[in-house]
Amino acid sequence: MLFDLDGTLVDSVYQHVLAWQEAFEELGIRISNWRIHRRIGMGDALISKELSREAGQPFDAGQTEKVRELHTRFFLARANELRLLPGSREVLSLLAQNSVRYAIATSSSRERAAGSLKMLGVGPDITVITREDVSFGKPDPDLFLAAMRRLQVPPGQCIVIGDSTWDILAARRAGALAVGLLSGGYPEEELFRAGAYRVYSDPADLSGNLDQLGIHI
Amino acid sequence: MLFDLDGTLVDSVYQHVLAWQEAFEELGIRISNWRIHRRIGMGDALISKELSREAGQPFDAGQTEKVRELHTRFFLARANELRLLPGSREVLSLLAQNSVRYAIATSSSRERAAGSLKMLGVGPDITVITREDVSFGKPDPDLFLAAMRRLQVPPGQCIVIGDSTWDILAARRAGALAVGLLSGGYPEEELFRAGAYRVYSDPADLSGNLDQLGIHI
Repeated sequence: MLFDLDGTLVDSVYQHVLAWQEAFEELGIRISNWRIHRRIGMGDALISKELSREAGQPFDAGQTEKVRELHTRFFLARANELRLLPGSREVLSLLAQNSVRYAIATSSSRERAAGSLKMLGVGPDITVITREDVSFGKPDPDLFLAAMRRLQVPPGQCIVIGDSTWDILAARRAGALAVGLLSGGYPEEELFRAGAYRVYSDPADLSGNLDQLGIHI
Repeated sequence: MLFDLDGTLVDSVYQHVLAWQEAFEELGIRISNWRIHRRIGMGDALISKELSREAGQPFDAGQTEKVRELHTRFFLARANELRLLPGSREVLSLLAQNSVRYAIATSSSRERAAGSLKMLGVGPDITVITREDVSFGKPDPDLFLAAMRRLQVPPGQCIVIGDSTWDILAARRAGALAVGLLSGGYPEEELFRAGAYRVYSDPADLSGNLDQLGIHI
């Protein structure tokens, strides 16, 4: 089982949204929060390219790097607001107890993910793939492909759990079954339309329904 | 034309979400942000009753009042982050220039709405109905009914513009046509299912499509 992090295990999407808005504004672009929300889960470069282009002021490489740095700074300034989503630690323990291999694969950098991983109690024995480990973030399949290789499980036997359409697309491109969660605030309908096999509320709801995914626990 | 305020004219929904989370946490209840987001637009009493009940710790009248006060305090602390949505001032001017009567009707208190109304440049000549003016907030129809009475326009000739399903329901209960906006981050599908006649992105998109609503400009 391959888990996304933000919005899937940790309640951090709303802080990411506001941190991006702040970062874009520093570079003179005002973007509505709902438009940012719909891009959370994508890799940073894609988010900044797409939103700056949509605003009619496409960023060059320097601005893309700058907005990414600002976003990281503003996000980390809100780190004390982050909370685990209900059932996130529990679902990981349940899988471990039942010898179901799992990994975490996030478009975030290791620096930005560190606080969340610590809250989750994820130690060095757990496979975590971050943006530095691959050439492209989601919706490219690279993060999930790297996690599959690390776990030594073929794509057809992997299930991706994510809260955004970018997770669902990346999962499909990697050849895995995709399952959506509502806990990042993404519309249920869009997750289904993107190809999610099932959509659950949050990790707690997922935990109670693992048998629907053919997981034996 | 009757406008909601938060998420419809002002980009304030994400700040409201985080302010509610903070307020509930002060009272010992942790609620995920996406669950709060889906209640934004409802009156405060309903939000706090529904969320505390869902969390299995239903609030009494004292706690309901306390969480409302805390939310207001935490929201006002984020007031410097608020921005107008694209086209919000412009659509109001356009209506005024064409002698289309309009009002603003919000579940917020006057204290909480004041900053947003100032940003919008709404003066004392514009009808604004806030929570103090009526017995019940949305999705009860009272706010919109009061606005209709003030404008002296019958319900069948009114169009409500709102970003949440609570606006759509309140509009229908008041006998008005409802139009949705995506700018509060509510799922398009839910706005349509709730009965929105059309759904636009934001006030700018609405401005460019007033003829689709039979408004002569």
